[in-house]
Amino acid sequence: MKILLNNEQDFFIINNERSIMKRVAIQGGLGAYHGIAAENFFAGEDVDIIPCVTFRDIFSAIKKDSNIIGIMAIENTIAGSLLQNYELLKEHKLHIAGEYKLRISHCFAALPGQTIHEIKEVQSHPIALMQCGNFLETLPGVKVVEHEDTALAARDIQNKNLIGNAAICSERAAEIYGLNILAKGIETNKHNFTRFLIFGNDWAVEDIQKDEVINKASIVFTLPHAEGSLAKVLSVFSFYGINLTKIQSLPIIGREWEYQFYVDFKFDDLERYKQSLVAIKPLINELRTLGEYPEGITPEV
Amino acid sequence: MKILLNNEQDFFIINNERSIMKRVAIQGGLGAYHGIAAENFFAGEDVDIIPCVTFRDIFSAIKKDSNIIGIMAIENTIAGSLLQNYELLKEHKLHIAGEYKLRISHCFAALPGQTIHEIKEVQSHPIALMQCGNFLETLPGVKVVEHEDTALAARDIQNKNLIGNAAICSERAAEIYGLNILAKGIETNKHNFTRFLIFGNDWAVEDIQKDEVINKASIVFTLPHAEGSLAKVLSVFSFYGINLTKIQSLPIIGREWEYQFYVDFKFDDLERYKQSLVAIKPLINELRTLGEYPEGITPEV
Repeated sequence: MKILLNNEQDFFIINNERSIMKRVAIQGGLGAYHGIAAENFFAGEDVDIIPCVTFRDIFSAIKKDSNIIGIMAIENTIAGSLLQNYELLKEHKLHIAGEYKLRISHCFAALPGQTIHEIKEVQSHPIALMQCGNFLETLPGVKVVEHEDTALAARDIQNKNLIGNAAICSERAAEIYGLNILAKGIETNKHNFTRFLIFGNDWAVEDIQKDEVINKASIVFTLPHAEGSLAKVLSVFSFYGINLTKIQSLPIIGREWEYQFYVDFKFDDLERYKQSLVAIKPLINELRTLGEYPEGITPEV
Repeated sequence: MKILLNNEQDFFIINNERSIMKRVAIQGGLGAYHGIAAENFFAGEDVDIIPCVTFRDIFSAIKKDSNIIGIMAIENTIAGSLLQNYELLKEHKLHIAGEYKLRISHCFAALPGQTIHEIKEVQSHPIALMQCGNFLETLPGVKVVEHEDTALAARDIQNKNLIGNAAICSERAAEIYGLNILAKGIETNKHNFTRFLIFGNDWAVEDIQKDEVINKASIVFTLPHAEGSLAKVLSVFSFYGINLTKIQSLPIIGREWEYQFYVDFKFDDLERYKQSLVAIKPLINELRTLGEYPEGITPEV
């Protein structure tokens, strides 16, 4: 509540500043997949990227300057949902302004003037290395080294002038850090998409959404562990014509008789959706709306 | 099918071998959390642990010797579900024999004869390092280094006689690799549980389950993307007295008009549960039972 009051006082000053430059906090640096999501979501706008080490740091940045917008991965088609990020959103009482879906495609990049056969060592984030397992098997002599971040692996090669070294990173990172792309689309599974949420305080959300059509929502609710309690709630949503696009249960540790559900909906009629929330209230324990926002475009493989 | 036939021929030989020593493939080495889950699940039995680098390698091991049992993490209360592991189970047509829930608790361990203040560097898996963030803040001068595995970080300290170096690992790993525990329970969030699945081919599952009471099941089904289709299916389960304990939706890439649901159930009556599966058949597209097994015990915090 304190934060909200502070921001109300500062609202006009902040609002003026913001019209000049949007400040967006992301996890990782430029050229990392969060950075690409930020650049694409705010394409055509002046955006000041604030790199954060952890997801929690994004929320600390917004706490310090309530005008900052956060971008955070929430689920990946291969790795699954990032539950702790849902928890962070819930805990900090911020709102989702939008979503961005990015196809994750890795490239193999090194300092210019080298062929793929001159590479002796490759460095990247362990998940990226794992996702390119088939490609790495084609390079049997190459030593595989873990790095904290895909983009920082690329930056290290530039900064330290590491000849014979390659990074597995985004094409954008290779471009930013002056590396030559020796192979692209090297991920084993091409169906690799990450969904990012763009979020912030109420006024930041309003500013981002402007006149866009709101047709999606993310909510979290708890249910008593009674037989058929979820079936009842979903039936009510179905009667109101609200389509479920994602559901994920999460046991509440220490409250084993209750369950928590994260649900995403799609709808044509925002009013009808709001009415459905009123209708389910008597059937559930707690309800929190994480955000109501326009659906993102699903990229092609 | 080929694997099944091979195994039918070898069945009696294998069965004899197995009565001497169970072979269990796990991801990571001894003292890693998968190893602890294996030791605890098969407590009192002779178990031969087969360490695997990746989750996929567990399945390759079972493909080579169909008698091997796999143990694999499927969800963690902080990090969420490991979707790719569900996919591996589905793809390989193996069955779940049981589940094991482990409380993840890290310790800070180093070569004997040192105090915590003599430690200059700590190494562990990035997730373990992250989970001990608060503890690490109390050691400001200590350099934090990422390692591929918590247990292997401990082993390295022993093998390389790394004085001034500590690992963040399980107490079991500290014990196996002769390290002295300088601090225990150093994870920030104590509500850190991982659920492991024990799985294998039909006969291996039968052998593990013996006369145990089956009161849990994991299934995966696809639904047409029609309004209220999930509500209908869950209503049927509720009419049959089958309790949902977990639900997770997963979009099917390339088949955007369908949805896939991973669901866990608890029930008192195995027959009733089987009848409910017959009852939902006309309402769904595809159905696969990943396993029917006894519920694991939830450890205390």
